[in-house]
Amino acid sequence: MEDIKVKFGHRIKELRLLKGYSQEKLAELSDLDRTYIPGIESGKRNISLVVIEKIAKAFNLSLSELLHNI
Amino acid sequence: MEDIKVKFGHRIKELRLLKGYSQEKLAELSDLDRTYIPGIESGKRNISLVVIEKIAKAFNLSLSELLHNI
Repeated sequence: MEDIKVKFGHRIKELRLLKGYSQEKLAELSDLDRTYIPGIESGKRNISLVVIEKIAKAFNLSLSELLHNI
Repeated sequence: MEDIKVKFGHRIKELRLLKGYSQEKLAELSDLDRTYIPGIESGKRNISLVVIEKIAKAFNLSLSELLHNI
């Protein structure tokens, strides 16, 4: 099975591109350091619940919606 | 808004009790150290995506289902 971090990274990248956000824009909306997003999208970062919530808010999604089909 | 760690902790405790598992049993099924579950249920631990996935598997739920209504 594909690594959950990789699957999550693909999901974030997909949503970000759908919204037309740059990685910097998503970092800003999520209140995360701009170096964070590339690490998430490439599946390298094992992010925490608190960070997952920040990203969900940036996309105006619930946690459940953010993790749909992952 | 209530802290996401606290909401997640309540959710895990609710699911665990529905299944009739002890904290030790859930730790075993999740392949986590037994000291982990009390910290999660009390909302103290900011757990990672990889740990969230382990707990979802222990309950036979998708990540999205595990985080439903959180």
